[in-house]
Amino acid sequence: MKGHVSLVGAGPGDPGLLTRKAIARLRAADLVLYDALVDESVLRYARRAQKFFVGKRASGGGAPRAGKKRNAISQEAIHALMIRAARKGRRVVRLKGGDPFVFGRGGEEALALQHAGVSYDVVPGVTSAVAAPAAAGIPVTHRGVSSAFLVVSAHEMQAFATAVGQLEPNGITVVALMGLGRSASIASLLIDRGWSRGTPAAVIVDGTRPEQQVWRGTLDDLAADRVEIESSGAGTIVIGQVVAMGLMTMVAERSPEGSRSMAGSARR
Amino acid sequence: MKGHVSLVGAGPGDPGLLTRKAIARLRAADLVLYDALVDESVLRYARRAQKFFVGKRASGGGAPRAGKKRNAISQEAIHALMIRAARKGRRVVRLKGGDPFVFGRGGEEALALQHAGVSYDVVPGVTSAVAAPAAAGIPVTHRGVSSAFLVVSAHEMQAFATAVGQLEPNGITVVALMGLGRSASIASLLIDRGWSRGTPAAVIVDGTRPEQQVWRGTLDDLAADRVEIESSGAGTIVIGQVVAMGLMTMVAERSPEGSRSMAGSARR
Repeated sequence: MKGHVSLVGAGPGDPGLLTRKAIARLRAADLVLYDALVDESVLRYARRAQKFFVGKRASGGGAPRAGKKRNAISQEAIHALMIRAARKGRRVVRLKGGDPFVFGRGGEEALALQHAGVSYDVVPGVTSAVAAPAAAGIPVTHRGVSSAFLVVSAHEMQAFATAVGQLEPNGITVVALMGLGRSASIASLLIDRGWSRGTPAAVIVDGTRPEQQVWRGTLDDLAADRVEIESSGAGTIVIGQVVAMGLMTMVAERSPEGSRSMAGSARR
Repeated sequence: MKGHVSLVGAGPGDPGLLTRKAIARLRAADLVLYDALVDESVLRYARRAQKFFVGKRASGGGAPRAGKKRNAISQEAIHALMIRAARKGRRVVRLKGGDPFVFGRGGEEALALQHAGVSYDVVPGVTSAVAAPAAAGIPVTHRGVSSAFLVVSAHEMQAFATAVGQLEPNGITVVALMGLGRSASIASLLIDRGWSRGTPAAVIVDGTRPEQQVWRGTLDDLAADRVEIESSGAGTIVIGQVVAMGLMTMVAERSPEGSRSMAGSARR
């Protein structure tokens, strides 16, 4: 049998946001290499697979789960593992938080597989850049309020400065993924570039999960490190007028089947 | 029974990219109000529901399907329909292409429901802003190439000009959804603001679907209307160095079960 690698997005945290195709790939897998994930319940679909935690943080703002900080392996070692397994005819799933191509290093892995002549595909996922704000009642776009959104990695301040530096401070939503430790620098940079200190801002940790926490304030609060939220350091920062729209926060609940699920009810 | 409305993202086109939760909401629905969709095969999950086409274009760049240009109803009429049905105790699914909050007017619908005191939730979907480029072998972010991406609606040139106007022309990916008719204006605006004419650009129509078409060229080609692609006018425009990365295009195929599915194989 010919080996194959699927680079699969597991979504933002709520296992209910896994796609049909992600589930199909997991069911067919012989080997699953997973990041600091969403939820281990997702792995239950991969019944017949060996599962290895490869220690990357979930892309798209997923926080690493408690107790999951095992030894991370290098990106090159992940490439080598995937290629070796596929060459042995195994069906490999590389499972990533969020979407593989939104700060997920999916592009690097795809290139490595392509150069090695290994058959692969990419299964896009629900990105927490959109879904974590949504769970906090924040639409990244809204007619008359925000007609564009910029997604940046909080880890890469240089890129952030380049992308946001000269951006007009109106009519746009900025979503910064990962690295809540950088939130003050990000806010200061925006203020330096002319954004109003009163611009609404939110920080979401464990977005779409039952443990979801949402902090709301202003750019000024962010800059002054007045964010009151417990976090291991990963999360989603949202800045823009859409934060103040007043939509309800979705309450994430455990579903009857035992998996976690964002509930059908909502509260203010 | 208490009525409820779910604003559900149906993903970018490939029904395999529907989430578990979207499927669960469709299965439980009494009434489905759907946009110019992805694929009518998605509606098969809603076995016991009445289904109404409400004539909105799929958000997130989905093109309306052929023959689906029936009479669109107004946004206000959609709100009224949802509210009336929920008050009668019905479970309503408002099914949108892509994600409800990425140019999907989900925010307006959520606000209307909230003001009417109707119970609702939002089920995020895979956005074509990320998935259509992925299917064309384009990662919206890639380490050392693009550390940020800006998502804009091609329909709103004013907002586009504001958002992109002063953006540094490096290290960022621009994704413009809907409105391929505006691609020349968008490209000209970027060139005016200092972006290189040689910047790689792509246009994707029916991204992730079996009918997927991908055109590749430069910003200059876009500006000069040299895009050779058949389209009803909707699609995804991607501009930035990631377009030239040379990843394989995913081939969308019909899956054995009759639904359409992005295949596990890939070609150059």
